[in-house]
Amino acid sequence: MVVKACLFDIFGTICDWRSGVSAVAQQVFAARGLQVDAKAFALAWRAQYQPGMERVRAGRRPYVALEELHLENLRRVLAEQNLDLPDEDQVRLNNAWSNLPCWQGAPAALAELRKTHLIAPCSNGSIAMILGIARRNGMHWDFIGGAPLARAYKPLPTVYTQSVAAFGLAPEEVMMIAAHNDDLCAARAAGLRTGFFPRPTEYGSGQDTDLAAEDAWDIVATDLSDLVDQLTG
Amino acid sequence: MVVKACLFDIFGTICDWRSGVSAVAQQVFAARGLQVDAKAFALAWRAQYQPGMERVRAGRRPYVALEELHLENLRRVLAEQNLDLPDEDQVRLNNAWSNLPCWQGAPAALAELRKTHLIAPCSNGSIAMILGIARRNGMHWDFIGGAPLARAYKPLPTVYTQSVAAFGLAPEEVMMIAAHNDDLCAARAAGLRTGFFPRPTEYGSGQDTDLAAEDAWDIVATDLSDLVDQLTG
Repeated sequence: MVVKACLFDIFGTICDWRSGVSAVAQQVFAARGLQVDAKAFALAWRAQYQPGMERVRAGRRPYVALEELHLENLRRVLAEQNLDLPDEDQVRLNNAWSNLPCWQGAPAALAELRKTHLIAPCSNGSIAMILGIARRNGMHWDFIGGAPLARAYKPLPTVYTQSVAAFGLAPEEVMMIAAHNDDLCAARAAGLRTGFFPRPTEYGSGQDTDLAAEDAWDIVATDLSDLVDQLTG
Repeated sequence: MVVKACLFDIFGTICDWRSGVSAVAQQVFAARGLQVDAKAFALAWRAQYQPGMERVRAGRRPYVALEELHLENLRRVLAEQNLDLPDEDQVRLNNAWSNLPCWQGAPAALAELRKTHLIAPCSNGSIAMILGIARRNGMHWDFIGGAPLARAYKPLPTVYTQSVAAFGLAPEEVMMIAAHNDDLCAARAAGLRTGFFPRPTEYGSGQDTDLAAEDAWDIVATDLSDLVDQLTG
């Protein structure tokens, strides 16, 4: 297997969105004197993620960047929970996604991999979101692929194949790396190599999904550092 | 003026395409025992650049990446000059554009600018071409914008505005930087700030275009280092 380039899922695989979003939510709600479980709120917001994108994937609305879907989803969750927040707070909450922390060690492991491989995100996040996360965490990508390049959302095959084509490589020369089995399933169907490691607390201590590889992915690793070692060793 | 991000033209502004292409042409033609003026050949090939893109801009054919147009243009020039080259040589020549040298000092000046500003190419080159150039010259971009993101060619306004939107910024917060007045004219019409410095030997010692600023651009500098000093000083 000669893998020349790697594509990465970001939310969950590289970034700890639950901690990042709930930290900002904690501050925003406390400042307004609202009693809200910030971690549960982050989960409720994230639960709107797939339905929001599905309307785009199914062609019921044109492609819009993820910030816009996130803001719509935020308003839906606020309404469901009878919470009233001024626009400035909604924007502040929404910007949390552009300023997420990485899981510990991820930037260093990516920097190590980049010595030998081209690397790019293949995320549903917008370029501005990925840029913000890269700046905060000191990460360097060769380019930013994924949804904003294809103007479509994963797991549609075009999102993977357009990022592969941007490298100027064949699908079998590129590995999609994610902590989510369904992402890898779609990438494999598009012809890419696949690499998995778990993020067992992405959704908190009670997580019961994606705790292990559910298919014979090309690389199954214990964590990102192990995956980089297996790719470069 | 608060410029938060800079977009850069690449061919001519950052890279010395004439030297890079003619050096490979020299090797390729010599190895086949063909007497060809490599620098004149590079100019003849480049002269097909705008007509090739114009067919896409005018909607007479769908967007194709610049490598493809370059290869078609190469075959046109070879035919005009009654030169016969095997496919492998044509590919080698075409790849010269993905491996161009930068003008001296450009990578260091860009690295300096990146300490305070977001930077991205806004070129007609494909992502793979820009990646190849970045790797050869040790350059780091925040993302790769321009034609491949918009699936359209400069100077169409959408190429500039889609790169601006990718930053998540307003046009007046972004400066287009080029050694070509027409590129800046189009960027200004799209609402961007503009920065110029000349590359007086881009086309060789007899160059008679773009030797000076032809409009009151927001910054007019003597060279790229001077432009970075003016932006960051």
